[in-house]
Amino acid sequence: MHTSQLDKTFAALADPTRRAILARLSTGDALLKDLAEPFDMTVPAVAKHLSVLENAGLISKGRDAQKRPCHLEPEPLKLAFDWLERYRKIWEFRFDQLEKLLDEMNDPR
Amino acid sequence: MHTSQLDKTFAALADPTRRAILARLSTGDALLKDLAEPFDMTVPAVAKHLSVLENAGLISKGRDAQKRPCHLEPEPLKLAFDWLERYRKIWEFRFDQLEKLLDEMNDPR
Repeated sequence: MHTSQLDKTFAALADPTRRAILARLSTGDALLKDLAEPFDMTVPAVAKHLSVLENAGLISKGRDAQKRPCHLEPEPLKLAFDWLERYRKIWEFRFDQLEKLLDEMNDPR
Repeated sequence: MHTSQLDKTFAALADPTRRAILARLSTGDALLKDLAEPFDMTVPAVAKHLSVLENAGLISKGRDAQKRPCHLEPEPLKLAFDWLERYRKIWEFRFDQLEKLLDEMNDPR
């Protein structure tokens, strides 16, 4: 089956290290060695996570062959956000219902 | 490593069949056999996808032992949406930059 952009984006986000890398890159570009520092992981293990993120189009790497700083690419995040937003009405409706229920419990007349 | 709710939510969403099941359930509760119908899949294969969704808290099953209709639980979708929303400023800023660039290309004075 064709692996869509959404498949790749959600799969890439299903890991706390990869989400932490994106959070770090949201503050500015960074090199592999700087990204690896805060994690209790080897540089190759972090490089593997970067490959997953790059394959999903969530990061890109600079052209400088020596350094290749990583750069956040937010477009796939927006697509995932847009997909989730379709369900917004449903969770808002459920929360309204819950609130009404709690109000009735507090004021049972 | 502890598998967080976000890990489970994003992993569950990284599959087109599971996303289609959620879309179907957003229109109302449904039984396994009705959910299986539109997919070119066996009932056990669809049941497996339902287990992943249930394990991630994205659906629940009714108590009627015979039928057990599936029900969408939107709370994990909201958590994923909230996580993605932190990056909204970044994609909006990038799109603004892109727009300015296009304007400059169209009107190069």
